[in-house]
Amino acid sequence: MNDTIIALATPQGNGAIALIRLSGKESITLVEQVFYGKKLSQANTHSVHFGTIRKNEQEILDEVLVTIFREPHSFTKENSIEIACHGSMYIVEQILQLLLQKGARLAKPGEFSQRAFLNGRFDLAQAEAIADLINAETEAAHQIAIRQMRGSFSSELRELRSRLLHFVSLLELELDFGEEDVEFADRKQLLELIEGIRKHIQGLISSFRLGNVIKKGVPVAIVGKPNAGKSTLLNALLGENKAIVSPIAGTTRDVIEDTLNIKGITFRFMDTAGLRETDDLIEKIGVEKALEKMQEAAIILYMCNGGETFDNEQESPYEADKKAQIYQEQFPHAKVVLVANKIDLRFDAILWGGKTALVAISAKEKTNLEELKESLYQWATKGQDLQNSGSIISNTRHLEALQKTTRALENAKNNLVAGLSQEFVAMDIREAIAHLAAITGDISTEDILGNIFSTFCIGK
Amino acid sequence: MNDTIIALATPQGNGAIALIRLSGKESITLVEQVFYGKKLSQANTHSVHFGTIRKNEQEILDEVLVTIFREPHSFTKENSIEIACHGSMYIVEQILQLLLQKGARLAKPGEFSQRAFLNGRFDLAQAEAIADLINAETEAAHQIAIRQMRGSFSSELRELRSRLLHFVSLLELELDFGEEDVEFADRKQLLELIEGIRKHIQGLISSFRLGNVIKKGVPVAIVGKPNAGKSTLLNALLGENKAIVSPIAGTTRDVIEDTLNIKGITFRFMDTAGLRETDDLIEKIGVEKALEKMQEAAIILYMCNGGETFDNEQESPYEADKKAQIYQEQFPHAKVVLVANKIDLRFDAILWGGKTALVAISAKEKTNLEELKESLYQWATKGQDLQNSGSIISNTRHLEALQKTTRALENAKNNLVAGLSQEFVAMDIREAIAHLAAITGDISTEDILGNIFSTFCIGK
Repeated sequence: MNDTIIALATPQGNGAIALIRLSGKESITLVEQVFYGKKLSQANTHSVHFGTIRKNEQEILDEVLVTIFREPHSFTKENSIEIACHGSMYIVEQILQLLLQKGARLAKPGEFSQRAFLNGRFDLAQAEAIADLINAETEAAHQIAIRQMRGSFSSELRELRSRLLHFVSLLELELDFGEEDVEFADRKQLLELIEGIRKHIQGLISSFRLGNVIKKGVPVAIVGKPNAGKSTLLNALLGENKAIVSPIAGTTRDVIEDTLNIKGITFRFMDTAGLRETDDLIEKIGVEKALEKMQEAAIILYMCNGGETFDNEQESPYEADKKAQIYQEQFPHAKVVLVANKIDLRFDAILWGGKTALVAISAKEKTNLEELKESLYQWATKGQDLQNSGSIISNTRHLEALQKTTRALENAKNNLVAGLSQEFVAMDIREAIAHLAAITGDISTEDILGNIFSTFCIGK
Repeated sequence: MNDTIIALATPQGNGAIALIRLSGKESITLVEQVFYGKKLSQANTHSVHFGTIRKNEQEILDEVLVTIFREPHSFTKENSIEIACHGSMYIVEQILQLLLQKGARLAKPGEFSQRAFLNGRFDLAQAEAIADLINAETEAAHQIAIRQMRGSFSSELRELRSRLLHFVSLLELELDFGEEDVEFADRKQLLELIEGIRKHIQGLISSFRLGNVIKKGVPVAIVGKPNAGKSTLLNALLGENKAIVSPIAGTTRDVIEDTLNIKGITFRFMDTAGLRETDDLIEKIGVEKALEKMQEAAIILYMCNGGETFDNEQESPYEADKKAQIYQEQFPHAKVVLVANKIDLRFDAILWGGKTALVAISAKEKTNLEELKESLYQWATKGQDLQNSGSIISNTRHLEALQKTTRALENAKNNLVAGLSQEFVAMDIREAIAHLAAITGDISTEDILGNIFSTFCIGK
């Protein structure tokens, strides 16, 4: 594994500077063969050197700055070297080719991070946080990733594990004494401990919904009868003319999507075709797509007419309420909300007596849009506070491991209550510990590592 | 001018690493305000430090590596600092905002290079070579740029200037002696010098054609009657199915373009609609576009039928020869060449007696394609050798300055031959020197600098 890997670490494309990184025992001496300037094998760690990279004495590829990192003082804890060259894809390609010829090999995606993990630079949850950090697009997502990268989630898990380990070793000690029927581990304390940890983990599991919302954004379908003002609402929320608006029913056929950041959470709005029986083939497909989008949505905004003038195609909030109930049953994973539009034409939301939650707005006059945004935020976070909510998990792998931990702890509890022999309880607790250890990678398999690091970008 | 400038130096987009650079007297102390780790104001030049960038004590934006460059040992010769953060556009944006708040300002395109130039890191021709270097896509373009960046062209110009300066100072010395009618500058030697330098510069001017071809590529229009095999040729050259090929005349309507690198030179092939009278409106537009592309082309490949079977829409090489002559007159800037296609069906190019140069190929059977490529290369370079051709200029600004230098030298020569007073000759030579000095920027105006550096990318 200690061969020298190489990759472009900055994005593809021309720019001022490109960064090529190498890692491995021989990385520094390997670059030294093509670098004209200071003798790199004698350079100190964390030092920067100007020189040229040459194919041969005569043929200069570029003037570069190289930075030396000596083991263990590098990202990978191996000897590493970074080459900052001019940001030309031709030059990058040439330098990569040259160093491949000299014996380096192209790094696989995430291979630098994988080496860093294997050499103990950080644990697996922290490594995963790096990928999340790079992809974070909002403050909230960035915050979760950076906390996790800094290790606060990992130490939380380690603390839980060490408490479980303490008790399990007492239980196992009892086993060593075999027939003597001693009890080193206080059963009442153990039950309390298991229950405490189970609750703690339940909290983490519950945070996944919010974590996932923060990481992936909240899909919001805007639906309703033709001419309810769906496209007008989308445009008003985005503050631009994204969707074509006209008084002609059936104007929107494609699903138009765009995102809006509300207090650090990304909402992905999907404007859909008006829901009605139609003979127009293209419009029909549009209606089908609207149903698909409702399937996908976490929040469905069902728009109706809060004004006083109706034509027979439009729905009053009370009519829409019935329809919304049906959709709520059809799409149980989503929250269906009524949006009474056109209240500039008169509608009193305070008197609303329907079953579905309702927000009264005027998309055209931009009335109550801030209230709608605040409601969207509350529905998405379910009122959880992003700032003071402790650890938030956002990784499916962690969720699954925590769910398995919970099941193991529940088994332990039941066996304990049922008075089963300590070896069964100890086995359950050992299993819980193993699931927790899998999250931080204290226990891991090549398969798991491969899955995780292959989703990283090249050069990371 | 010594305020602190900041810019992202690596391409936009997410990746493993992004590099933010700052330059200016206060750049290091400015970053120190938000960097938690080593006290940067005490760090040595060319040293690298790990730490965190924080909005405030609590709020960590990222873990970073910063590199310190102390004046004059930096690219700009000012204090400079580079921040390598995780390659997330959110983080980059946040760090930029934070440092802008602390007093940095966003760098204009090329502003780092402009400072480097103004502080004497390199001359103007070298600075221009950096931009060329980044944009170079072929070995030849890269070679020209790197030679120019390393200063070989600049020293060539300085050598010419110093020889002219030597003589002009002798001439001016004569002026000081006024009435005494002395001749310090040998007139015959001076004439030889001027003529020698004029010829040298003429050589540079002639190299521009090749330089431009190397830098910008060679536009090649493929034209001919319908069904002559134009699209088949394009596909055969590219080794892929780029253009739709069918036996139906008029298949190609849009102009299809793609590039091919032949021995370090980029050829941009433009496949066009068949040239014929047509009532089809879209095809008609296609024919008009073909004529536009011929206007644009440096080489026009006129395809005809070198086989033995003809229908009345196809042309034999001899028929095509006449048409090619007409196009050659119509497009005098381009070289028109006949390509006799379908020679798998029989054609003997050796017996060719037409006026236009001819290459016989079979696009379908890929016969003689290498010969065609070699010919294209020869026509583009006019047989000039890229490797051993001395300086090649590829910059229009340099071309114009050299042309002005030539005119000034010719004036000097004529005035010298006509026996005019030394002050006129000295003036002409001074002018020639000034034009040469403008290339390297020894003489420059803000306007010129603005024009040059504004074409650079941000962060360079």
